[in-house]
Amino acid sequence: MLQPVLIAGEWRPARSSGVFKAENPALGETLPDEYPTSDWSDCDAALGAAAEAAALLRTTPPEKLAHFLGGLAGRIEARKAELVEMAHTETGLPRSPRLAEVELPRTTGQLRQGAAAVLEGSWALPTIDTRLNIRSVLAPIGPVWVFGPNNFPFAFNSVAGGDFVAAVAAGNPVIAKANSSHPGTTRLLAQEAFAAVAEAGLPPASVQMIYRTSHADGERLVSDPRTGATGYTGSRAAGLKLKAAADAAGKPIYLELSSVNPVLILPGALAERGAALVDEFVTSSLMGTGQFCTNPSLVLLVAGEATEQFVAAVKARFEAAAPLPLLSSSVARALAASVGTLQAAGAHLVTGGSAAAASGYRFCNTLLRVSGDEFLGAPRKLQTEAFGNAALFVVARDGGELGAVIQELEGNLTGSFYSDTRGSDDALYGQLEPLVRLRVGRLLNDKMPTGVAVSPAMNHGGPYPSTGHPGFTAVGIPAALRRFAVLQCFDQVRPGRLPAVLRDEPPHNRVWRLIDGEWRRGPAPGA
Amino acid sequence: MLQPVLIAGEWRPARSSGVFKAENPALGETLPDEYPTSDWSDCDAALGAAAEAAALLRTTPPEKLAHFLGGLAGRIEARKAELVEMAHTETGLPRSPRLAEVELPRTTGQLRQGAAAVLEGSWALPTIDTRLNIRSVLAPIGPVWVFGPNNFPFAFNSVAGGDFVAAVAAGNPVIAKANSSHPGTTRLLAQEAFAAVAEAGLPPASVQMIYRTSHADGERLVSDPRTGATGYTGSRAAGLKLKAAADAAGKPIYLELSSVNPVLILPGALAERGAALVDEFVTSSLMGTGQFCTNPSLVLLVAGEATEQFVAAVKARFEAAAPLPLLSSSVARALAASVGTLQAAGAHLVTGGSAAAASGYRFCNTLLRVSGDEFLGAPRKLQTEAFGNAALFVVARDGGELGAVIQELEGNLTGSFYSDTRGSDDALYGQLEPLVRLRVGRLLNDKMPTGVAVSPAMNHGGPYPSTGHPGFTAVGIPAALRRFAVLQCFDQVRPGRLPAVLRDEPPHNRVWRLIDGEWRRGPAPGA
Repeated sequence: MLQPVLIAGEWRPARSSGVFKAENPALGETLPDEYPTSDWSDCDAALGAAAEAAALLRTTPPEKLAHFLGGLAGRIEARKAELVEMAHTETGLPRSPRLAEVELPRTTGQLRQGAAAVLEGSWALPTIDTRLNIRSVLAPIGPVWVFGPNNFPFAFNSVAGGDFVAAVAAGNPVIAKANSSHPGTTRLLAQEAFAAVAEAGLPPASVQMIYRTSHADGERLVSDPRTGATGYTGSRAAGLKLKAAADAAGKPIYLELSSVNPVLILPGALAERGAALVDEFVTSSLMGTGQFCTNPSLVLLVAGEATEQFVAAVKARFEAAAPLPLLSSSVARALAASVGTLQAAGAHLVTGGSAAAASGYRFCNTLLRVSGDEFLGAPRKLQTEAFGNAALFVVARDGGELGAVIQELEGNLTGSFYSDTRGSDDALYGQLEPLVRLRVGRLLNDKMPTGVAVSPAMNHGGPYPSTGHPGFTAVGIPAALRRFAVLQCFDQVRPGRLPAVLRDEPPHNRVWRLIDGEWRRGPAPGA
Repeated sequence: MLQPVLIAGEWRPARSSGVFKAENPALGETLPDEYPTSDWSDCDAALGAAAEAAALLRTTPPEKLAHFLGGLAGRIEARKAELVEMAHTETGLPRSPRLAEVELPRTTGQLRQGAAAVLEGSWALPTIDTRLNIRSVLAPIGPVWVFGPNNFPFAFNSVAGGDFVAAVAAGNPVIAKANSSHPGTTRLLAQEAFAAVAEAGLPPASVQMIYRTSHADGERLVSDPRTGATGYTGSRAAGLKLKAAADAAGKPIYLELSSVNPVLILPGALAERGAALVDEFVTSSLMGTGQFCTNPSLVLLVAGEATEQFVAAVKARFEAAAPLPLLSSSVARALAASVGTLQAAGAHLVTGGSAAAASGYRFCNTLLRVSGDEFLGAPRKLQTEAFGNAALFVVARDGGELGAVIQELEGNLTGSFYSDTRGSDDALYGQLEPLVRLRVGRLLNDKMPTGVAVSPAMNHGGPYPSTGHPGFTAVGIPAALRRFAVLQCFDQVRPGRLPAVLRDEPPHNRVWRLIDGEWRRGPAPGA
């Protein structure tokens, strides 16, 4: 059965140029449902409807947006069993704890945090200059396209995931482009979102969803005049093509692309707690079959006996752990190709390196290593992201060579340091930290990068090419909302014509406003 | 005499591919000093020195940065007479009040506001999650190129102007590219900045300055790996070429480009206070010979007797006012060409339209008009920015046609509404305001747009193509600083290794921090 798309407030047949099917990667089987590749007329219809919804959303009370976000969270919980089963079937990710106990609650938690942010209003940095009567606030940017990644069928889904929450909480309609590896999960989420839209009384086109477009139409839609902005999480190659198109049209696009997430294990830490570090690393490295944006796939070590023991122990653990399924046949192909690229660039195989003899799309847990010298001979190629259960260890001669290696690193989402607790690594940390700090969005101490907490202080972003702009984060409320907003200033605008949040008397006393240089709750002084 | 450039802490001869001279536009004469067009080796040397300075500035105490900014302000005041004379000679702008009493104090005021922002630290939005021990803050982005415009020789100068202050206050070294129409003024400011750098004990390459590069080198420098970001204020054509180069390299570039700044004069306002509006408009339109980014160069009116009286009165005032010099021969040429473009697109000349018979580069105060119908027939060409003392009136049939005209407007920095004080325009305002709001960065009521106050609530920005990103402002402290920063997160980083502003005990009790969702001064709770 060919599935319909959600455009302009109705589920209707796509105007399509082709069909595709999802797969069950754990079994290596194609699933029966057919999904359409929408042609431009679908995109055009969605954009037209979204532009109308955007105009209505600008005057929609925050309570309705919050009602929608909270309502969607409740609906997701009510349909949990079916959602978990569908996501499991389409992605091979374990039902429990991953999907049911970790990712689904994270998703509903994000929706509820988004609802709270809408009601509170401080995310928009309302700013008042009472002396000059100038006021400004962040306001909705307009229709947002969300391209979700393959690796989080709930938490980063283009419907109900992080970018979706941020865009809606900032007051925008979303047009979701489903990820082709979990269209069924996205369909279920879109059904719930559409029902929640109706219950909250939002404009029907506040949430729309299509499954796939041609590459050319993808570039056209991110640069269309009706588009406000785009949120994209996925491969670097596809993301940079969309970026080029959006940039040329002056349309903001927020990208979360590849990252190898360097982990530095300093000698003192290895001496102090090598066995524990083996455990921490292997757990993080193989989590989700290594298919995390923040997977620790590049580990930097200093040569020595303890390092050889560490490598040997990781090798043994990688060999002992049965490889879990990858998300799709294309992930499996790309992983094999990337491991091949690393080997061609001089990386030596420690273990793994080939498809696993088991059902579905599986790849042996793979460990590669190079010396610092070797890395410095081919630093670009040896930073190829091998998305999946593979890691590259760089064993440097000494701290100086470690520094040289770091200076060749591209922008990354994260960088982690392990150092001993008694101070023997402190001098080396002091030398290397400034080099790492420049190249990563989130710096960690004594912790693997795979946990991305939904915290106001989180940065799930980083220097190019890990993202498209180093000032923004894709995770963390309220900051993530500010990507989907424009700065609007009101200069001597008459009081009755101001947005409620900029009036002398705020709509409620919870909202923080920067009034004459001070963050305050409550009325403007003198009001 | 060929002037030296300021690179890597010394004034030295440029490695140049050519020379140019400035002109005295009031007299139409070339000035004697020769300035070099630097070749790539100068750019390369400046970038290398800036990268080293950037590393040192990251650990420089805020007090030193503030000392520099405040010191430069004092030095500019001490050299005021010479600066005013030089700027007057190079730009034709009046010594008084414009340069001496308005623009120079604005410039020193911005420097001192920047110094205060550095000391206070709240601009960087320090954010602490005490439960998860995750902390984040905006941090310097690295070497910033500043391309200043021709129209504010002090306040937007690439040395000491708004982008310079924002970049330095955010902790970055600046490489200034002087505007070719006031190289002597920029040289004097760079001399003072260099002396202030030494007095404050900043790295010598914290401020560097070159005069001009080839277009190809301009595109290369904004996209160089050592570049952190670029601030550009100037023409749309040149700015979009730099944007394309920077975007392709993933380098942030903040642009402030053309804007026609629509002013809507609603019928009730004209009936209520037509004579006063003539005065307000003419004053704003001819201020600085119309050479403001926020010049009200597109006025939207509704047809009728009062509008004809308004047009006739503006015509009389334009004809009675002697045209002042334009900034340069190229501005005069571009203005004549733009007025020609508007006429070719159907605009009718009311008055002016040709060079003025007086010394130097002057153009008759120029007023053009079209009907709403005519505007809708060629909306792109009729939005051509005529930078200088020219304005286009669009006389619409009625409010509905006014709305249609607004829907054709590109992104602008500002949009102004004049409406009567007794309510007769309120319904029309309600219809049109949402259409204007979407298309401008700053919305004004009953006020011309030419005053751009340096207020925390200011937005000197707007939708593309008035700028390159609708979320940022070029004027206003602290917001303008955030353009030149990256988001840095610290996840479980040990307390002694945190930046001072993220420790439980802040460096001082003036800094506002978002701690567990509340803006607070003072220590983190539980600290």
